[in-house]
Amino acid sequence: MINDFIYEIPTKVYFGKNQLHRLGQELSHFGQRVLLTYGGGSIKTSGLYDNVVNEIRSSKLDLFELGGIAPNPRIDSVREGAAICKRENIDVLLAVGGGSTIDATKWMAAGACVDFDPWKFFSDNVRVEKALPVCSVLTLSGTGSEMDGGGVITNPQTHEKIGRGSKLLVPKVSFLDPTNTYTVNAYQTACGSVDMMSHIIEVYFHPERDLEMLDHVMEGLLKTVIKFAPMAMEEPENYEARANLMWTSSWAINGFISSGKRHEWSCHPIEHELSAFYDITHGLGLAILTPRWMEYVLDEDNVEPFYQFAVNVFGVDPKLPKMDVAKEGIKRLSDFFFHTLKLSSTLHELGIDDKNFEVMANKACQGNVLKGFKTLTPQDVENIYRMCL
Amino acid sequence: MINDFIYEIPTKVYFGKNQLHRLGQELSHFGQRVLLTYGGGSIKTSGLYDNVVNEIRSSKLDLFELGGIAPNPRIDSVREGAAICKRENIDVLLAVGGGSTIDATKWMAAGACVDFDPWKFFSDNVRVEKALPVCSVLTLSGTGSEMDGGGVITNPQTHEKIGRGSKLLVPKVSFLDPTNTYTVNAYQTACGSVDMMSHIIEVYFHPERDLEMLDHVMEGLLKTVIKFAPMAMEEPENYEARANLMWTSSWAINGFISSGKRHEWSCHPIEHELSAFYDITHGLGLAILTPRWMEYVLDEDNVEPFYQFAVNVFGVDPKLPKMDVAKEGIKRLSDFFFHTLKLSSTLHELGIDDKNFEVMANKACQGNVLKGFKTLTPQDVENIYRMCL
Repeated sequence: MINDFIYEIPTKVYFGKNQLHRLGQELSHFGQRVLLTYGGGSIKTSGLYDNVVNEIRSSKLDLFELGGIAPNPRIDSVREGAAICKRENIDVLLAVGGGSTIDATKWMAAGACVDFDPWKFFSDNVRVEKALPVCSVLTLSGTGSEMDGGGVITNPQTHEKIGRGSKLLVPKVSFLDPTNTYTVNAYQTACGSVDMMSHIIEVYFHPERDLEMLDHVMEGLLKTVIKFAPMAMEEPENYEARANLMWTSSWAINGFISSGKRHEWSCHPIEHELSAFYDITHGLGLAILTPRWMEYVLDEDNVEPFYQFAVNVFGVDPKLPKMDVAKEGIKRLSDFFFHTLKLSSTLHELGIDDKNFEVMANKACQGNVLKGFKTLTPQDVENIYRMCL
Repeated sequence: MINDFIYEIPTKVYFGKNQLHRLGQELSHFGQRVLLTYGGGSIKTSGLYDNVVNEIRSSKLDLFELGGIAPNPRIDSVREGAAICKRENIDVLLAVGGGSTIDATKWMAAGACVDFDPWKFFSDNVRVEKALPVCSVLTLSGTGSEMDGGGVITNPQTHEKIGRGSKLLVPKVSFLDPTNTYTVNAYQTACGSVDMMSHIIEVYFHPERDLEMLDHVMEGLLKTVIKFAPMAMEEPENYEARANLMWTSSWAINGFISSGKRHEWSCHPIEHELSAFYDITHGLGLAILTPRWMEYVLDEDNVEPFYQFAVNVFGVDPKLPKMDVAKEGIKRLSDFFFHTLKLSSTLHELGIDDKNFEVMANKACQGNVLKGFKTLTPQDVENIYRMCL
């Protein structure tokens, strides 16, 4: 069953080392007043902040700023940014940072065009009807926020972390310079790499047979991360490794590989509760969860994609019995996450026990079930959390 | 060496069986007066013509028509279409057909906006500064014209067949319904499949090391064609096979896999002289040429991509000596073209002898050399033609 779909990726991408001189010109297409958003200030130490500000100023644009956007960005940042946009009549937002900064900026752009509290986009799933244009300069490979319309926002008051999207929030122009990720440390490089692999795995394991072409593309993307993530951890300034990771992260989630696939994701909603409750890094949570989820859902009826994953991504011998091949694929993925990428393999190591698992499982299922690759009840989700202890 | 590049694919694609009801609405975004272009009339027997016309009429748009666009489309069709656009104040062109119809329609759209003869875009390489919007309904998978800005036009008077492009000619909206290719016969299915494989091979064999991620994507696309082309030949109404071929053809040439690669192509210019002189099907010419070109250029210094091609696309044993693996890959590709796809393997079978080879080789090199994966002199090109006899 191949579903009909509409393909539309409007983001223009400047990829490479010597592209930032186009920034002012691109921004000026959208207007005069620019809100520059960023995170904790690492872009100031790296010099990127100065380069961006110079570009904006030399193009005679009016610059406004909002720094301090936290990882797992909070709804408060969104509220603040939306208020600045309204007060200052902002024409275009420029997010300089990783997925957190870009995600938050998208929702500022939507919040700027409504009269209600932007948390309603999440709590009530209000549809985005209008948004200011967003551009980005990416400094961390992983979330793919630079080329998609999604954004995940945390509300610490309600322990909620919710992702929503709209095609109106897809960045118009993104600048992807791999050298801007040279300063990302080994741990964050690993977490970003897991995030992009998870975006692919969520799509690769789909309940209906679909365009096989896309399966092969996904296998190619996964092989790319497996080769270049450890290289970027070892040699932070390896341009080839950083470039391959950066462009893969965009394509893992920009909509191409998921064309027509309408199934819900599994590991992401399960992980979102982990980082909502414990504020752990999203990619780390995904690394711990994904192999357990795979073990939990694998059965005789759905062994086929696990088998293909093992053979085509990890080169497991296709002549062995199917179930053995499938399990070996999961083992290789665990080894990659916990040995090659050196990530913690259990929640216990992070000081997390089982006391919130039941609540988290219910939240992940939103009071119902998770209809992903395989339907999961809250009890299933709780069981998966327990496998991660 | 990874070159900087700009990525921008603005085409919106409606993919699947039940999408044509969006046609009128999409066209109306561009204006009121539509020029519908098509080829030899097979869309009338299939019923597609009626469906398209009904869609246009029920959206209250004004319909103008130009049928009879030939395969290897001629500059005369372009001239005629451009003249209609000017005379009738056309707002948007809708090409319904394969690559030939779409290619010709793009250049009508450019010709409509200039006062000079549109052949100047080819003979003098005049840059496109403005063009009417083009949309397409695709009926043949292969050229990828539905999602790129290129078009190849033949001038029978001068024996020239020249491809040029502009981002202004990229279709705004394309409708890709795999069922519209059910009536494509086995031979044309084979030729279209070779064409898309050639688009990938031209990029895959590039002189500088580049984003490995894209190599893996290309390997995935090639594996897709190798699996589904014979299936579509055997069972013309196999939706899965037609869908995989259709979407692969778009991605083989829409700019994604070639990001940053600036080398010239090799087999396409060599083939263009063949079909300019003898009016043979482009894909057939490419099938005959490509394995000979590979044999001719393979050497100890460039064996690496041939080795990867053999291992990752055709599953040749990676433990054998590199040169043996490389040659086995070429052999498997020949077998695929000439046995699986049942295409003629020599020019002799097509009644072509060597009398024009010298002239053709000089034209292919445009009086200079072909700077592709490996630089070829006119003598090299002539040698390759001779290998095809």
